[in-house]
Amino acid sequence: MERKGKEDGDYISDIPAEVETDGNNGIPRKRRNGVTDHNHNNGDDDEMMMPSIEKVFENEVVPTWQQQLTVRAFVVSLILGILFSFIVMKLNLTTGIIPSLNVSAGLLGFFFVKSWTKILEKSGMLKQPFTRQENTVIQTCVVATSGIAFSGGFGSYLFGMSEVIAKQSTEENSAQNIKNPSLGWMIGFLFVVSFLGLFSVVPLRKIMVIDFKLIYPSGTATAHLINSFHTPQGAKLAKKQVKALGKFFSFSFLWGFFQWFFTSGDGCGFINFPTFGLKAFENRFYFDFSATYVGVGMICPYIINISLLVGGILSWGIMWPLIENRKGDWYPAELSPNSLHGIQGYRIFIAIAMILGDGLYNFVKVLNRTVLGLLHQLRSRDVLPVADQPDTANKSISYDDQRRTELFLKDQIPTWLAVLGYIGIAVVSMITLPYIFHQLKWYYVLVIYIFAPVLAFCNAYGCGLTDWSLASTYGKLAIFTIGAWAGASHGGVLAGLAACGVMMNIVSTASDLMQDFKTGYMTLASPRSMFVSQVIGTAMGCIISPCVFWLFVKAFDDLGIPGSEYPAPYALVYRNMAILGVEGFSSLPKNCLKLCYGFFAAAIFINAIRDSVGKKWSRFIPLPMAMAIPFYLGSYFVIDMCLGSLILFVWEKVNKPKADAFGPAVASGLICGDGIWTLPSSILALAGVKPPICMKFLSAKDNIRVDKILKG
Amino acid sequence: MERKGKEDGDYISDIPAEVETDGNNGIPRKRRNGVTDHNHNNGDDDEMMMPSIEKVFENEVVPTWQQQLTVRAFVVSLILGILFSFIVMKLNLTTGIIPSLNVSAGLLGFFFVKSWTKILEKSGMLKQPFTRQENTVIQTCVVATSGIAFSGGFGSYLFGMSEVIAKQSTEENSAQNIKNPSLGWMIGFLFVVSFLGLFSVVPLRKIMVIDFKLIYPSGTATAHLINSFHTPQGAKLAKKQVKALGKFFSFSFLWGFFQWFFTSGDGCGFINFPTFGLKAFENRFYFDFSATYVGVGMICPYIINISLLVGGILSWGIMWPLIENRKGDWYPAELSPNSLHGIQGYRIFIAIAMILGDGLYNFVKVLNRTVLGLLHQLRSRDVLPVADQPDTANKSISYDDQRRTELFLKDQIPTWLAVLGYIGIAVVSMITLPYIFHQLKWYYVLVIYIFAPVLAFCNAYGCGLTDWSLASTYGKLAIFTIGAWAGASHGGVLAGLAACGVMMNIVSTASDLMQDFKTGYMTLASPRSMFVSQVIGTAMGCIISPCVFWLFVKAFDDLGIPGSEYPAPYALVYRNMAILGVEGFSSLPKNCLKLCYGFFAAAIFINAIRDSVGKKWSRFIPLPMAMAIPFYLGSYFVIDMCLGSLILFVWEKVNKPKADAFGPAVASGLICGDGIWTLPSSILALAGVKPPICMKFLSAKDNIRVDKILKG
Repeated sequence: MERKGKEDGDYISDIPAEVETDGNNGIPRKRRNGVTDHNHNNGDDDEMMMPSIEKVFENEVVPTWQQQLTVRAFVVSLILGILFSFIVMKLNLTTGIIPSLNVSAGLLGFFFVKSWTKILEKSGMLKQPFTRQENTVIQTCVVATSGIAFSGGFGSYLFGMSEVIAKQSTEENSAQNIKNPSLGWMIGFLFVVSFLGLFSVVPLRKIMVIDFKLIYPSGTATAHLINSFHTPQGAKLAKKQVKALGKFFSFSFLWGFFQWFFTSGDGCGFINFPTFGLKAFENRFYFDFSATYVGVGMICPYIINISLLVGGILSWGIMWPLIENRKGDWYPAELSPNSLHGIQGYRIFIAIAMILGDGLYNFVKVLNRTVLGLLHQLRSRDVLPVADQPDTANKSISYDDQRRTELFLKDQIPTWLAVLGYIGIAVVSMITLPYIFHQLKWYYVLVIYIFAPVLAFCNAYGCGLTDWSLASTYGKLAIFTIGAWAGASHGGVLAGLAACGVMMNIVSTASDLMQDFKTGYMTLASPRSMFVSQVIGTAMGCIISPCVFWLFVKAFDDLGIPGSEYPAPYALVYRNMAILGVEGFSSLPKNCLKLCYGFFAAAIFINAIRDSVGKKWSRFIPLPMAMAIPFYLGSYFVIDMCLGSLILFVWEKVNKPKADAFGPAVASGLICGDGIWTLPSSILALAGVKPPICMKFLSAKDNIRVDKILKG
Repeated sequence: MERKGKEDGDYISDIPAEVETDGNNGIPRKRRNGVTDHNHNNGDDDEMMMPSIEKVFENEVVPTWQQQLTVRAFVVSLILGILFSFIVMKLNLTTGIIPSLNVSAGLLGFFFVKSWTKILEKSGMLKQPFTRQENTVIQTCVVATSGIAFSGGFGSYLFGMSEVIAKQSTEENSAQNIKNPSLGWMIGFLFVVSFLGLFSVVPLRKIMVIDFKLIYPSGTATAHLINSFHTPQGAKLAKKQVKALGKFFSFSFLWGFFQWFFTSGDGCGFINFPTFGLKAFENRFYFDFSATYVGVGMICPYIINISLLVGGILSWGIMWPLIENRKGDWYPAELSPNSLHGIQGYRIFIAIAMILGDGLYNFVKVLNRTVLGLLHQLRSRDVLPVADQPDTANKSISYDDQRRTELFLKDQIPTWLAVLGYIGIAVVSMITLPYIFHQLKWYYVLVIYIFAPVLAFCNAYGCGLTDWSLASTYGKLAIFTIGAWAGASHGGVLAGLAACGVMMNIVSTASDLMQDFKTGYMTLASPRSMFVSQVIGTAMGCIISPCVFWLFVKAFDDLGIPGSEYPAPYALVYRNMAILGVEGFSSLPKNCLKLCYGFFAAAIFINAIRDSVGKKWSRFIPLPMAMAIPFYLGSYFVIDMCLGSLILFVWEKVNKPKADAFGPAVASGLICGDGIWTLPSSILALAGVKPPICMKFLSAKDNIRVDKILKG
């Protein structure tokens, strides 16, 4: 599953649209009530209420693991992998909010292979029917591929090393703290670090999925989706959904194309449309006509969008104007608006404080739950596989579970292979990483690799319980610890960022892939075929993602510059965290630290309130993490997302079943169409083709000046 | 009914959306086949297929004619009259295409009074229930009021007298050929000429409606609409339709409001959006985001929109660029693009040639049919009222007809009153008109008034048969004859235009009001109440329309200037016809006359082909009149209208019954919302409130220049 660094902006993808938030909150509620129940049956709650799924599929032969890995599956995965890499990259570089693309991947994978097999069937050349196992393989591969586009840090730590970002803060931008992106080292780096997570979770998959029976809400939801597609009426609905997706895909793509014509220069085009007036535009309140974020808004829960809006109003509507009034007192008046010693510093560091506060709270919460959960598991001695004692230990074992467990345990991946793989790659990367980053000594890497499996386990377990991956929190941990260890004089900033990358890749892959194993478990896909698919997907991702990023770098000159089309907001945030870790708080403008403390505390406080009041009230309390995002970026994408929310809200009022069935498809269409438009758009930019028209927005005063000049 | 000068741009309203085109073509087809059938039953074709309408209403008491005239009816009429006057005026001044607003008038009239009576009913103060007769009275009054906004010539002959228009042609713009609009004389003029038509048709109403049983498709359709509203399920549908209308009304109004913010200067805003690129924009191909014309496109038959598009492509896509290549040869290169001796001359005069060719063809056709029809009526001696011989002469006389005829003949309007009224007003206007226009001698007026009743009869009869009012053709006849009679040295241009106004008002009112009598006949409204309503409506129109026009004149400085928001295209066309009539062809640029002959002939030829091939093929042949409109204006409004067509087309494909039921309501909503927005917009302009933002479209080259200036 595409579990992306949960405790950053992108944890927006936490609660996938297709998962009831109940699935998320079920466990905390039980814990709070002091019921010392097992986590045992949680994963199967859904199935108990519905007739057995496996009975439906009983007559279908499960292909061997080799049969599940078809050439067509990987061709389709490659195509979708490229598509989603573009989308994720675009999102990385615009706002850093990445919704769950699982539904799209599942839908499109089904659609592609189904069409493929249909055509072959008609021509009489079909050798092998399309099975749900194959569908899962595609899904897994696509998620592994596009996952790299996130965990590769192209919008965060990796891009944070570059000169463009370094220049934006006056501290620590000497040559030893800068490493500009280049295709060669990026691919090498990703190959070295991306497979570790895979090997670290393989030995744990039986414990997590069968013994602990963790939910993995996203994995479960995707499995339901794939299962439903392969039943006759499921296929019919899927076809309709694909049609809706295709329609909005085309619309979104053509809309992107149309917009392009009007963006001849800076400040031109629909993305600069001052929908609510020029004054609001200056404070970054405007609708920027981005189909992507309208779609993202439709997928994200309402509370996320509301939180974003609250954050945007609080910061750009109230706080920043108030701070700007103190110009000359709180910070030097002559500074450029993008200087970190000026107003931009307040924006960035207060956002960081909130993100860290929220991250810390959730880290402690999930860790606490992980430890308690583990203790329970061990105390009740339920660590033996259920399948060995089906009749005695647990009477409620269902037919579905029996069959799934049986197949899940059939194709084993030897533990020695996983351990050997892990150690082998660790050794290779200890040797190669210091070549890529001189500042990252081999012993830093060794330390990370010693702790990594534990953290990977923690993250995979926590994610199984709550669907939250804390990958980027672990990454930040690495920034601060390794950065401080290396110290400012030895290029600590770069060492910190690189360490963050190593850590994030391991931890993020671990939770992602465990979600996939859960999906595989529920669709009777062989763990072996899943593993191969993940390896291939990861390898594809290691090549595709840097290439896509490279295309963006070459095509858009102003990549990473605040106020441009692709500001890559988290790159600066990550770099500043590294600077903070190395240097301490000395670089902050006046009163900024106090405000940071306040917001750090507020983030923890709000989270605590959210957890202590019941679900009835908590859904009205904004999420601090989501609030922090517009602090830095402004609210333009928030307006898009709120519009998406509004559309879905009205749609649900008018026709709830239809909205539920087609909402995610429409949203995916909007996101994918706009996302894939960036491919031709960047090619056009590379080829030096400039749009012919500039749609400009001038104040009445400026317009008079301009008219005089154009006429004269 | 709002029958507007059919053979001009505005004859777009000919085939109202709610009338099957069959109703229009039924008679010509019969004639062509040589069937010497009476026109007798044509009007009741519809009813024969459905159960008797009057049986449904049998138990309802028909109020006396005094009871049909309620205060609330006239209050509602006043409100709607103002609304529609704004809409018609806006259409007059933008493109001159005016769709049938009957449906909106019927719907909104019903809605207003129904809400009114509902409220009173709840408060127990309702004295009189809302009847269909009252609804007809409102409908009649509103149509009479807004009809003046068209026949007053604010977008054609009357505005053509002004200095703004006169300046655009170098000929005949001396003081004696100019009369600038002013509230006083416009109201006086309208009062003097607008009632004549009314008096001229009153004596004929029995002949036309009962004896000849003419169809009056628009009148019949409106009657069906009103009848259906007052049956229970009709009221339910009407309520839904009003809801749809209201929704799109609000949308359209808010859209107009939103657009306003971005129009801080010339060339700003959505109306200058180069949707298809700057090159196409220069040739006036662009979508200008006008909700009005999208609505108009939904109401107009597909063939009209296609004709407009064909005309637009033929002229601005092919002919004008070709002629512009001859710049310096065919016309002097140094002329301004708006000079009538340059490219603009070709545009205007070729358009006039086509309009005149089409007008002539249809004039001959309708006249021919009128004469033949009359001969039949007289030969078969069917001039006695049917009601007098119900059992013997015609066995097929239905219950509906019996009842309707009975009530139609109950309240007579004495013929002596009509004759006296006509003579009285004629005398008054012979005295007063020369005071308003010195160039228009009293004997010109006398001659017009002698011929007018005959022409009014012809027009009312032709309109009853074909739904085509030829008012503006008769008007043009007056321009040429009176203009030539007066001669260039005696201000013939102004005399011609004034004569056109006198003629058009009489002829247009005659056909409009006869349509209303048909509606009244079918809804059992008393002719007397209809007459009173028409008188009141006309009087309201004579005051409202000049005031609305005055508001436009005061609010928009560039009214009547080509390329501005309100170019009033027909004002220049009419003035040039007058100049042509007075001066001959000497003023035309090189080769223009040859082209004019060609297009004049082509218009007749295309019409002849349309009539000679069957309906199967004729619906693919464009209408020359519609083609001529974009010759002068360009295709921007055509794009809007085609979009409207496309929307309706897709809607009909998806859900035909729904599209049929709600299409006109949605279209009316779009038209009315945007139309009423002009009220606040012109008030804002009067108050000197400038929009804050200019949305400008610059070429990439200009943009670089502008950016330099704005930064420097």
